[in-house]
Amino acid sequence: MNSPFVSDVPAAAAHTAWREARAAAGCPARVATVRVPVGEAVGRVTAEPVWAKRSAPAFDSSGMDGIAVRAQDTVGAAETTPVLLTDFEVVDTGDPLPAGYDAVIMREHVHRTGEQAEIRAAVPPYQHVRSIGEDISAAELLLPEGHRLRPVDVAACAAAGVVELAVRRAPVVAIIPTGDEIRPLGATLEPGDILDTNSLMLAAQAREAGCAADVTEIVRDDPDAITAALRAAAAGADLVLLIAGSSAGRDDYTARVVAGAGTLAVHGVAVRPGHPVVLGTVDRTPVVGVPGYPVSAALTFDIFAAPVLAELEGAAPRERPSTTAHLARKLPSAIGMDDWVRVRLGRVGDRVVATPLPRGAGVLTSLVRADGLLVVPSGVEGHHAGAEVRVELLRGLAEIDRTVVAIGSHDLVLDLAASALRADNPLITLASSNVGSLGGLVALRDGLCHLAGSHLLDPATGEYTLPYVDKLLGDGFAVIRLVHRDQGLIVAPGNPLELAKIDDLTRQGLRYVNRQRGAGTRALLDHELARRGMDPADIPGYAREEHTHLAVAAAVSSGRADAGLGILAAARAFGLDFVPVAQEPYDLVLRTDSLADDRLAPLWDLLGRTGFHDEVEALGGYSCAETGRRIR
Amino acid sequence: MNSPFVSDVPAAAAHTAWREARAAAGCPARVATVRVPVGEAVGRVTAEPVWAKRSAPAFDSSGMDGIAVRAQDTVGAAETTPVLLTDFEVVDTGDPLPAGYDAVIMREHVHRTGEQAEIRAAVPPYQHVRSIGEDISAAELLLPEGHRLRPVDVAACAAAGVVELAVRRAPVVAIIPTGDEIRPLGATLEPGDILDTNSLMLAAQAREAGCAADVTEIVRDDPDAITAALRAAAAGADLVLLIAGSSAGRDDYTARVVAGAGTLAVHGVAVRPGHPVVLGTVDRTPVVGVPGYPVSAALTFDIFAAPVLAELEGAAPRERPSTTAHLARKLPSAIGMDDWVRVRLGRVGDRVVATPLPRGAGVLTSLVRADGLLVVPSGVEGHHAGAEVRVELLRGLAEIDRTVVAIGSHDLVLDLAASALRADNPLITLASSNVGSLGGLVALRDGLCHLAGSHLLDPATGEYTLPYVDKLLGDGFAVIRLVHRDQGLIVAPGNPLELAKIDDLTRQGLRYVNRQRGAGTRALLDHELARRGMDPADIPGYAREEHTHLAVAAAVSSGRADAGLGILAAARAFGLDFVPVAQEPYDLVLRTDSLADDRLAPLWDLLGRTGFHDEVEALGGYSCAETGRRIR
Repeated sequence: MNSPFVSDVPAAAAHTAWREARAAAGCPARVATVRVPVGEAVGRVTAEPVWAKRSAPAFDSSGMDGIAVRAQDTVGAAETTPVLLTDFEVVDTGDPLPAGYDAVIMREHVHRTGEQAEIRAAVPPYQHVRSIGEDISAAELLLPEGHRLRPVDVAACAAAGVVELAVRRAPVVAIIPTGDEIRPLGATLEPGDILDTNSLMLAAQAREAGCAADVTEIVRDDPDAITAALRAAAAGADLVLLIAGSSAGRDDYTARVVAGAGTLAVHGVAVRPGHPVVLGTVDRTPVVGVPGYPVSAALTFDIFAAPVLAELEGAAPRERPSTTAHLARKLPSAIGMDDWVRVRLGRVGDRVVATPLPRGAGVLTSLVRADGLLVVPSGVEGHHAGAEVRVELLRGLAEIDRTVVAIGSHDLVLDLAASALRADNPLITLASSNVGSLGGLVALRDGLCHLAGSHLLDPATGEYTLPYVDKLLGDGFAVIRLVHRDQGLIVAPGNPLELAKIDDLTRQGLRYVNRQRGAGTRALLDHELARRGMDPADIPGYAREEHTHLAVAAAVSSGRADAGLGILAAARAFGLDFVPVAQEPYDLVLRTDSLADDRLAPLWDLLGRTGFHDEVEALGGYSCAETGRRIR
Repeated sequence: MNSPFVSDVPAAAAHTAWREARAAAGCPARVATVRVPVGEAVGRVTAEPVWAKRSAPAFDSSGMDGIAVRAQDTVGAAETTPVLLTDFEVVDTGDPLPAGYDAVIMREHVHRTGEQAEIRAAVPPYQHVRSIGEDISAAELLLPEGHRLRPVDVAACAAAGVVELAVRRAPVVAIIPTGDEIRPLGATLEPGDILDTNSLMLAAQAREAGCAADVTEIVRDDPDAITAALRAAAAGADLVLLIAGSSAGRDDYTARVVAGAGTLAVHGVAVRPGHPVVLGTVDRTPVVGVPGYPVSAALTFDIFAAPVLAELEGAAPRERPSTTAHLARKLPSAIGMDDWVRVRLGRVGDRVVATPLPRGAGVLTSLVRADGLLVVPSGVEGHHAGAEVRVELLRGLAEIDRTVVAIGSHDLVLDLAASALRADNPLITLASSNVGSLGGLVALRDGLCHLAGSHLLDPATGEYTLPYVDKLLGDGFAVIRLVHRDQGLIVAPGNPLELAKIDDLTRQGLRYVNRQRGAGTRALLDHELARRGMDPADIPGYAREEHTHLAVAAAVSSGRADAGLGILAAARAFGLDFVPVAQEPYDLVLRTDSLADDRLAPLWDLLGRTGFHDEVEALGGYSCAETGRRIR
C-alpha cells in the first residue's frame, strides 16, 4: 500500500506538522467568545472561569420538615425526662430558619400536643440547619475555563446568581463534496454514479461534536472550481472538510488545490483506512482533505477533525471508553501503518471476545456493525488469535455483556430473529458474524461465541452438522434446529442458460461463483459433485469464492457470474431466478450449559412462536416444521 | 432518615410497581413512529428493521488508481519476464470496472511506455476490484429495530438506497415546577425565595436524553392548581416531571394529587439522595414526583425518568462507562438505602483513587465536581478506606488519568491556578478536595493524592508545615511554596464589635465560628491562644466548626457568627471586614519523584509567571515573593 505519490507520515507527526502550519498561517487558537443565557449554554464550553455571584442556599434554612427551636431549650431532654417546648415554630424543608432559632427537630421526633411540643432528646445547635453557602459560597470558583457545560453545571450557575455565561460559540464546519460521479441523495443514478453519503455522515459527525455544519453543493473535478469553493468555505468556517480527491489519481486535486490556495502540511498519513489524507490551511482556516471511502472519511473525522474542533472550543476532546478483549482470530497487520480495525464484541464465559470485521475502507457496514475499534500500531505486525487487545468502545459494555454472539454460517432467519428480539426488548442484541459453518463450530469450540450456525453436510453419512459436532466438539454440546431451507442455483432472471441441475455446471463457457471452503453450501456442492463423480476442476469459476449467499447473488446480479449455489432468499433479494437442488437443515450449536443462559431464553421463546414461523416462511424457501426442536 | 410518612421501597421494586401501574393504566409502550428523511434521523431510534434497497457499491468498480486489465493477459509476467499489455484502460479508484476487464493493477506497479503497459507480475482475476455489494447487498438487514441512529448508520442507509426511515418520534417531557417560594430565573429574590434551577436542569437532562422538554409556569402550593397543571401537562406529554412537594410536609401535595388524578404507584424509595420520590400515572401518562433538592432531582431523572424515556423509544438506555477505584477514606452508609455517593477520581501511582464529596441532597456542587458516582447498595454498611469500589464515570478515564489531585487545605490560589492551567491547555485538570492541612498530609502519605496544600503551624517551633512533613512523611517528600497570605478575623462590615486582636475573642456574648481540627487556620488560632495563655473554653462558639474559609465568611455574613479566623479573600467575597492577625506561608507538599511528573510540569511553569503572580496579588491579602520556590 506504500505509494510513491502519497507519503506515509505517522499520525503523531501529521498532527504536529498540521499544528505548526496552522500556527504559521495565523489560524485562531480558539473560536470567539459569546455571552449566552445559562439556559442556552448546555453543551458549550466556558470561555472564562465562572465565579459564584451569590451563595446557595442564600439563607440559613431548615433541612427537614419539623420545628425550629433554640438548642439550649432542649438541654436535658431524654426518653425518661421529656421537655415541653412552648417556644418553637413549625418549618418545612427549605423554609428560612426563623429568627431567634438555631436548630431544627424532625417532625417524626416531635410529640406535639397543641401549643406544646414534647421533646425526648436534646439537640445540638445547627442540627438539621442548612447553612447559608452550604452548596455554593459567593465568590468561589464554580467552574474553570475550558469546561463543557452539562445540565448540573448550568443549574449550579443559575443557583449562584449567574444568569449569563461566557462560552465559546459552536465551531462552524464547512463540508465540500467533490467528484464528477457524485450525486446528491435522492438523485436518480446512472451507471457509475455514486451517492454523496459522506457529506451526510460528516455533517452528522460535526453536529455530534457540538459544531454547526454547512454542506455546500457538489463541486465537479475541476481544480479552479474546487479552489473557488474552498476559498469561499474557508472564509465562513472554522474548519473545512473537502471530500474525496485527496489521493493521487488523475482527478485528485485536493493536495494541489490546498497547496495553491494556502499551505499543504501533510499529504498521506500512516493510518489505514484513511491513508490519503490532506491536512493544510487556507486563509487562516484549517482544511482536511477527507478520503472518499466512507470508513476512511469517518475515521479521518475522528482522528484529525475532532481534536482540532475540541481545541477550537478550548475543551478536551470527547473520549471513548475502552476495554480489554481477546481476539477471536489472528489479526495480521502491515508494519508502517496504524491499522484501525473494527471489531464485534461479546462476553463469552469470563472474557470479552473481539471478532474483527471486514477491513476494507469502503465497507461502511463494518463500522455500522462494530462494537469497538482496535488500533494495531504501525510498529506491530498484527496479533495472534487469543491475544489480549485494548478496544475503544462504540457501544456500552453492559450492552455488550448482554449480547448473544453467533459465529458461523449466515442465514437471514438469524437477522430476522435479531430484529424481532430487539423489538420485544431493546436490551437484547443478537450479533452474528459470518465465517461459514465450520468456522462457527471451531469458534464455539474455542469459546469465542455462544451460538454457531451450521448446515454442514457430512459426505460420509449424508447427515448435517451432527457428525461434525461429535467429531469436533464431543460431549457437552447441544444442537437446536433453526429452520429447513432450500438450496439451489441462483441464476439470472429468466434463467437464460436454462440450468436445471448440478450436472449443468460443467457446461463450456459457464461462469460459476463458489462459496469459501468451510461453508456449508460449499460442502453441499462438493458432496453433490462427488455423488455424481464430477470433477470440481471441470466447473469454470469453481475457484472464485464469495463469503455469503448475498455476495453470490450479487455476483450473478452484476453479470460477473452465471450461477452460484445459495438460498432462495438471496436470489429473491436481487430479483434473480432460483433452481432448487436440495433442502437442508440449518441448526444452532451451543454448549449444553448455555441452554440455561438467561441471555438465550428470549431466543428459545421466539423460536416457539407461530407468528415468527409465519414471518420466516414468508421469506420463501424456508420451512419451520422443526424450528426450535432440540436434536442433540 | 426513615420516615413514617414516606415509604422505603427498594429501587428495583419501585421500578416494577411503576411498570405495572403504567401497564394497568394503559400507558403506551412506545411513542409513535414517524417517517423522516435519513438526514434528520441521527439520534432517533429505528421503529422497524431497515432492509437495504440497493447494493453498495452498486457496480463492480476499481479499488485502486491504476489500469483495468484481463487477468489472463498477465499470466507469466515476472521481474525477469515482463509482459507488455496493449489492451487495458486507465481507471481511478471508484470508477466502474470497464466491460471486458476483470482485474486492476495499481498505478505504482505499472511501468507504462505510451500505448503499452509493462507488467512484471501476474495478477489473479478480481484483484483490486470492489465487487457489487461488497459493502451492502440489496435486501440484507442493515439495522434492527430499536437501534439509535449514529452518523455512520444514516450514511449506510443512504448508500443502501433508503431515503426515509421509520423512527420513534422524540418523547416529550413536561416539567412542572411547584412551590410558593420558587421564583423564575432572573427574578429579584426576597428573603426565603428560591430560584427555579431544577426546571432548567431537568429540561437539559431530558434534551440530553434525546427528548423534547416543555417547562410550564411555576405552580403555587395548592392541590387544585397542581392537579390542573398535571392534567394539562399529561395530555400533551409522554412523561411528566412534577418538581418538589414529593415529601410529606405540610405543603407537599404531589403524592395526594397523583393519587387523586390517577394512580400513585410508589411514594418513597430506598435511595439516597432522592428518597421522597413519587411514581405514578395520570391519564395514560407516567408521572414522576421529583424531590426539590437539586442532587435528588438530578439523580431521580437518571434512575427513574431516563430508563422509561429510553423504553418509550424502544432503545437501550444510555449507559455510563465504569471503572474500579480505591476509596480515599472510610465511607459509612446506612443499611436499607441505596446510597449514591459522588466522588472525585484521580490516578495516583497505579491506582484510581476515589474521594467522596459532600453527600447532602442540597449540595449540587458535589455533582458538578464529581468525576463519578458510586452506589453503596442498601444491604452494605459502607466501605473501609482503601476498599475497591465500582464507580460510574462522569468524566473520561483518560482525562481522569491526566488529572492532578490536590487534597488538603483550601486556598483560592489553587482554584485560580486550576482555571489558568486549563485555559492554556484544556487537557489539564487540577482537582482539589478540602480536608484541611493535616488531612492533606495524611492523604499524601497514604498515596491518595499528588499534592497536599498545607499551612500547618507547629506550635513547638513556630515553623509552618516542614516539621509535620519531617514527622509524618520523612524522606522522599518535597515542599514548594505556593504563596504567603494574610490570616485575620473576618467580621461584619464596619467591624461593629470593634474586634482588633485575638485577645478580644473571649468577650462576653461574642459568637465565634471556628475551623475544624486539623485545619491550618485552627492550628494558627490554637497557637495564638497558647502563646497568650488563653483558654479555648473562654471563646464562645469555639466548638462550632466550619470546613472552609468561605464557610466561615458565610456564617459571619448571615449574622450567625460575629467573627472567625480566615483569609482576606474570603472576607472580600462576602463584602465583610477583615482584621489581619498574621501572615502565613501556604505550601504544596509532594513526593520528590512527583517533581518530574509530566502532569505537574505546567503547574511549575505557571508558578514562575509574573502574570500569574499579578493575578494572585490582585485578589488581595496574598504575596507571591516566594511563589514556586522549593523549600525542602
